[in-house]
Amino acid sequence: MAGIKKKAEIPLDIKKIGLRLRQLRKEKGFSNSDEFAYEYQLNRSQYGKYEAGSEDLRLSSLVKILEKLEIGLSDFFNEDYDNIKLL
Amino acid sequence: MAGIKKKAEIPLDIKKIGLRLRQLRKEKGFSNSDEFAYEYQLNRSQYGKYEAGSEDLRLSSLVKILEKLEIGLSDFFNEDYDNIKLL
Repeated sequence: MAGIKKKAEIPLDIKKIGLRLRQLRKEKGFSNSDEFAYEYQLNRSQYGKYEAGSEDLRLSSLVKILEKLEIGLSDFFNEDYDNIKLL
Repeated sequence: MAGIKKKAEIPLDIKKIGLRLRQLRKEKGFSNSDEFAYEYQLNRSQYGKYEAGSEDLRLSSLVKILEKLEIGLSDFFNEDYDNIKLL
């Protein structure tokens, strides 16, 4: 699986992207990631890794998910994205 | 090469990202992509594909390039990104 990088190599932004996906998925009314992935025929384990920030996803994968969330890249990466604090 | 998708499958956003990279690279004073790639030890042919919008790059690759351009994801995907018109 070419996408899996060693933990240390995955930039912090990938973690933030995961938290942002989780935030938006909940806003859309899906209490867990499996439910959302099932609804939109996404690979459940893959989508779970995206939210966990443990997969260095391709831009086309992010764009595909954002279509389901009905949001564009500039709205995804807005002030809310900037305000996400990594614990 | 897993990253190369058939032309039709690459979302329009990937083309816009390429044009945005070109815009920022020129603003930084690099007249061509090779010069920029050479300066920052990026793979020249790979970076050329990113600007051409023909490679479905991973988010970590985009983040790495944005570090060289000294810009974050939210500034990359701002109104200027939205205003990019695909010819």
